[in-house]
Amino acid sequence: MARTGRRPGRSGTREAILAAARESFTASGYDKASIRDIARRAGVDPALVHHYFRGKHELFSAAIELPLDVATVISTIVQGDREQVGERVIALVLSVWDSQVDRSPLVALVRSAVTDEDAARMLREFLASELFVRLAEALEAPGAPLRASLAATQIMGLLLARYIVRVEPIASAPAPVVVAAIGPTLQRYLTGDLGLT
Amino acid sequence: MARTGRRPGRSGTREAILAAARESFTASGYDKASIRDIARRAGVDPALVHHYFRGKHELFSAAIELPLDVATVISTIVQGDREQVGERVIALVLSVWDSQVDRSPLVALVRSAVTDEDAARMLREFLASELFVRLAEALEAPGAPLRASLAATQIMGLLLARYIVRVEPIASAPAPVVVAAIGPTLQRYLTGDLGLT
Repeated sequence: MARTGRRPGRSGTREAILAAARESFTASGYDKASIRDIARRAGVDPALVHHYFRGKHELFSAAIELPLDVATVISTIVQGDREQVGERVIALVLSVWDSQVDRSPLVALVRSAVTDEDAARMLREFLASELFVRLAEALEAPGAPLRASLAATQIMGLLLARYIVRVEPIASAPAPVVVAAIGPTLQRYLTGDLGLT
Repeated sequence: MARTGRRPGRSGTREAILAAARESFTASGYDKASIRDIARRAGVDPALVHHYFRGKHELFSAAIELPLDVATVISTIVQGDREQVGERVIALVLSVWDSQVDRSPLVALVRSAVTDEDAARMLREFLASELFVRLAEALEAPGAPLRASLAATQIMGLLLARYIVRVEPIASAPAPVVVAAIGPTLQRYLTGDLGLT
C-alpha cells in the first residue's frame, strides 16, 4: 500500500491504531501494554487490532517503524544452515538499512532510546521479552538470552557507527566486507563457545 | 586532585581551557580545532595549554570527560601478549565503566553523538584521525583502520546496551562473562582473519 498521506477508512484506522500503540507503549512499557488498552485508546474493537497486526510484537515493530519484524528475524535464524546463521542475520540487517533511503526512523529510535528513559524501557522490554525469548527457543542453545543480547550489542553498535555517527571506514565499507567481518562474531555469539565454564 | 567546585588559580585555568576546548571542538570539529585557537578562546598562552594537556587528543578526552585517554588505550594494546589484546581492551573498558558510579558523562557523550550532528562529527573525526590511526601503527596489521572501527562498533554497542539502554541479561552480566564473550571478538577484529580476500 502506497503511503500517500492520511486517508479515511482502512488506512485511517490502521494509523489510529499505530498512534494509540505508540502512546500505550510509551506510557506502560512493552510488557504492560495490551492490545485491549491500545484498542480502547484508538476507539476500535480489539478484534480489529488483531486483523491488522499478528500480535503485540508486530504492532510494536510497526509503531516504531522498525523495517524488520521479529518474525522475519526469527525465521531468518531458524531456516537454513545453522553454521551460517551469523552471516544471514548480518546480511539481513545490512539489506534492510543499506537500502533505506530515509533512515530517520532508525535515527529517531536510537535517539529516543538514549535520551528518554521511557523509550529505553520500552525497547529493553521488547528485546528481552520478545526477541530474546523467541530466539532462545529457536536456537535451543544453552544461555540463549545472553547469546541474543550479545548479538544485540554487536548489531546496535554497527547501526550506531555505520548509519548514525558514521565512523569511517566502517560507514562506507561494502556490505560483503561487513558481512565477512561481523558474520562470524554473531555466529559465535548465537551458537559457538562463549568461554563460559 | 579532588574536584570540590571551581577554584581560582591552577584549576580555574584548567577549567577555562576545557570550556574553550569544548567550544572549539564543537564549532570546528576535531580535525580543524587547534591548540592555538583553544588558547585564544581561553585567554591564555598556548604553552599553558601544553602544560596541562599532552596534546589535542588528551584535551579532547578531558573535555568530553572520557575516563580513558587514547594513550592509555594504545599502551594497553601494545604492551603484553598480542594474542590477548582483545581481552585486555574489553577488560579495560569494563574496569572503567563498571566502577563508574556516575555514568552521566558517558550518557551525555552518546546522547550528543546521536542527536547533534556537530557532536557526531567531532567524535567521528577523533576516532578516525586519532584512535584508529595510532592503533593502526601500533598493531602493524593490514587494514588496521577497518579493524579499529570494527572494534569500535562492538565497544560502542556494549556501552549502549549495558550502561545506557540497559538491555538484560547483558546489563547485569558479571565482568568475567563479558570479557570471555567479547574478548575473542575484539581479538579477531584487531589481529585475526577478517575473511577479506
